[in-house]
Amino acid sequence: MTDKTALTPRTHTTPPARFSHGVKKGNILQVAGQVGFLPAEEGKPPTPAGPGLREQTLQTLANVKAILEEGGAGWDDVMMIRVYLTDVAHFAEFNGIYDAYFGEQDLTQPPAARTTVYVGLPAGLLIEIDALAVLG
Amino acid sequence: MTDKTALTPRTHTTPPARFSHGVKKGNILQVAGQVGFLPAEEGKPPTPAGPGLREQTLQTLANVKAILEEGGAGWDDVMMIRVYLTDVAHFAEFNGIYDAYFGEQDLTQPPAARTTVYVGLPAGLLIEIDALAVLG
Amino acid sequence: MTDKTALTPRTHTTPPARFSHGVKKGNILQVAGQVGFLPAEEGKPPTPAGPGLREQTLQTLANVKAILEEGGAGWDDVMMIRVYLTDVAHFAEFNGIYDAYFGEQDLTQPPAARTTVYVGLPAGLLIEIDALAVLG
Repeated sequence: MTDKTALTPRTHTTPPARFSHGVKKGNILQVAGQVGFLPAEEGKPPTPAGPGLREQTLQTLANVKAILEEGGAGWDDVMMIRVYLTDVAHFAEFNGIYDAYFGEQDLTQPPAARTTVYVGLPAGLLIEIDALAVLG
Repeated sequence: MTDKTALTPRTHTTPPARFSHGVKKGNILQVAGQVGFLPAEEGKPPTPAGPGLREQTLQTLANVKAILEEGGAGWDDVMMIRVYLTDVAHFAEFNGIYDAYFGEQDLTQPPAARTTVYVGLPAGLLIEIDALAVLG
Repeated sequence: MTDKTALTPRTHTTPPARFSHGVKKGNILQVAGQVGFLPAEEGKPPTPAGPGLREQTLQTLANVKAILEEGGAGWDDVMMIRVYLTDVAHFAEFNGIYDAYFGEQDLTQPPAARTTVYVGLPAGLLIEIDALAVLG
């Protein structure tokens, strides 16, 4: 049996429940829904980057990337990125941030597929992102 | 060609459309979105467990587990759990139920990754869950 | 290293951001969230099929299928279909359209698993669908 490995970047806040920030098994790596929490500080509650969509989005992408790297992977391995926004009015601004970010990532492979939908999130959170990667 | 197998627990209600409750192909097992319907009874419409979030959540998790087991898998094989709640105010209670449930599952592997978002669901349903597993 | 290939049907509109309509790597094929846009016409903005849910749904399914075929796959390879509707009142009508569509697809394998939730989408869009396939 192939082991399933938990991927837990040292800087990440503790998950609010019994789930892993990421798991890897064989060539499949799944990143849990990440939000724009700043690196954890002992004794402080999880705090999102701010004040706006740009800061939260970039922090969220950094949090996803840290989990990929914990599993020996990177954006080039990602097949699917699921984006959950809270406001349809954010779509154009978000796409600009997304494109600029990935433009700086030195990808050698085509970009991942993506689905973007608009949902409710806990107060203060504007975005959540998860990702599925296939390694090797 | 590897066959895709439908996973249909005997106690499950008939899907409301042409989809499978679960499918397995090679080492990939996908569980369709499950809700908190009680075991099907002939001549009765699908009825969710009740009256509250706890009962629906536990029934939903039982329904997911039944499909995993139909495919020779279990929670240890699950990489990703997608949770759809209808009310942000349910998050803390849901996490408590989730943690207690998985605390009793005798997992030998790290917990799955998870994404939780808040969406609309048909009347009477408070939660929907799907899952992706990698076997072997 | 196995290459990740972008799947870009000739008739598809350009994605609004740096993502691929579909990607394939090894035996995994992921289709990005598709909406009911009619085939792209130069100089015209993306336009959804209309006027109703039926036309958008059928165009969306055709758009998903085109990406599967671009990757040498088809509906029989699909493990999971994620459906995002905007209105719970559309569920019954949507299921009728979905069942009729798949009834005409000459599937030789069991139907895919499915999750359907109700979210916000950009103005004018009633449905979005993505899909995960396992080939071979």
